[in-house]
Amino acid sequence: MEIKIVKDILESNNVTAEENRKFFKEKKAVLINIMSSPGAGKTELLDATLGMLDGALRSAVVEGDICTTMDAERLTHRNVPLVQINTDTLGGVCHLEASMIREAVSKFDINDTDVVFVENVGNLVCPAEFDIGANLSVALLSSPEGPDKPLKYPLMFRTCPVVILSKMDIVEALGVDIDEYERNILKVNPTAKILRVSAKTGAGMDAWINVLKELHKTSAG
Amino acid sequence: MEIKIVKDILESNNVTAEENRKFFKEKKAVLINIMSSPGAGKTELLDATLGMLDGALRSAVVEGDICTTMDAERLTHRNVPLVQINTDTLGGVCHLEASMIREAVSKFDINDTDVVFVENVGNLVCPAEFDIGANLSVALLSSPEGPDKPLKYPLMFRTCPVVILSKMDIVEALGVDIDEYERNILKVNPTAKILRVSAKTGAGMDAWINVLKELHKTSAG
Repeated sequence: MEIKIVKDILESNNVTAEENRKFFKEKKAVLINIMSSPGAGKTELLDATLGMLDGALRSAVVEGDICTTMDAERLTHRNVPLVQINTDTLGGVCHLEASMIREAVSKFDINDTDVVFVENVGNLVCPAEFDIGANLSVALLSSPEGPDKPLKYPLMFRTCPVVILSKMDIVEALGVDIDEYERNILKVNPTAKILRVSAKTGAGMDAWINVLKELHKTSAG
Repeated sequence: MEIKIVKDILESNNVTAEENRKFFKEKKAVLINIMSSPGAGKTELLDATLGMLDGALRSAVVEGDICTTMDAERLTHRNVPLVQINTDTLGGVCHLEASMIREAVSKFDINDTDVVFVENVGNLVCPAEFDIGANLSVALLSSPEGPDKPLKYPLMFRTCPVVILSKMDIVEALGVDIDEYERNILKVNPTAKILRVSAKTGAGMDAWINVLKELHKTSAG
């Protein structure tokens, strides 16, 4: 068994992340890193996003999971390039690293792509520690998870300039105070842009699509 | 900065976990490791459990969080010994390890205790890799997380002989098929004991309390 040293892993990841950033800039494409707890609705958001973008931005998706291709399969009907990373072949790693993204992006033609969406492993801790070289990191916080999560997992919410409050359609049934979620996000990240979204009903999706279009215009335009 | 070697960490953790197991056996107490995604309802389950046990089993709680004492504070009204582990002082570790439990248990009198509940860090991946020496590992899967989670995070559901389907009170509002959750748990762990619970309404709590009483009788009795 290979002995991995934690310090080395983090340092070499940062070097590769910088290379990814440079590569995407040259190719006039943007890389979006979508992170959350398991079951917060990353795949459902991506499905709705691909449906609404439909051609406006040419998209590709990199799916990160410990195992299975279930999430990728949910997106095949969108007819965009899909690459699945299964980390169980890499020792069951609980996050994606910059080198995995480089490898994944080599599987399709980046010259035909405006935006690469990365769906990270469902985990509110470790993915925030590993820069993949993204132009934008986005955290999803689903309403059933409760308003305390930004305070308990501050690195994730501090790392992400955009936070999506997902599953807004069940807020009423849950009886939660969604303003409290926003206040707690702003406590750890006062400049966060917060979007209230239901991928199911489409509510709030326009604002998210605009974020993507603006980002592509400024970063890659 | 200290260089930590992954292989050594796992090996030395297993040694300490065995020592914990021996220690609890000698003390006629049981150790319960409660794990789930962030926001699946671990603290709410513990709160309801302590309320129902009320004296039948003398309890203590070890709360594991990266930061904050928010979960421990929610349990202070139960008047049981509470120890908070904050892993941010340990480099923000995303799981609890056997040595942390040994340290935490030294903070109260184990001779006055029948059950020690450990609420692990909210994470469906790494906590399953670290044996803490528990008599019983329990995974919570909350209904809003979706039925695919056992297939995507199989190690967690394979590690836990008891799986609690939590937040059963909102199943109808979500419109999910809860039988599918059970089928997927049994696919990765055919002998799992599955309990449908709402800590909020109390539904299913009796079965969970019985599991605890039986375990204490056989393990420590």
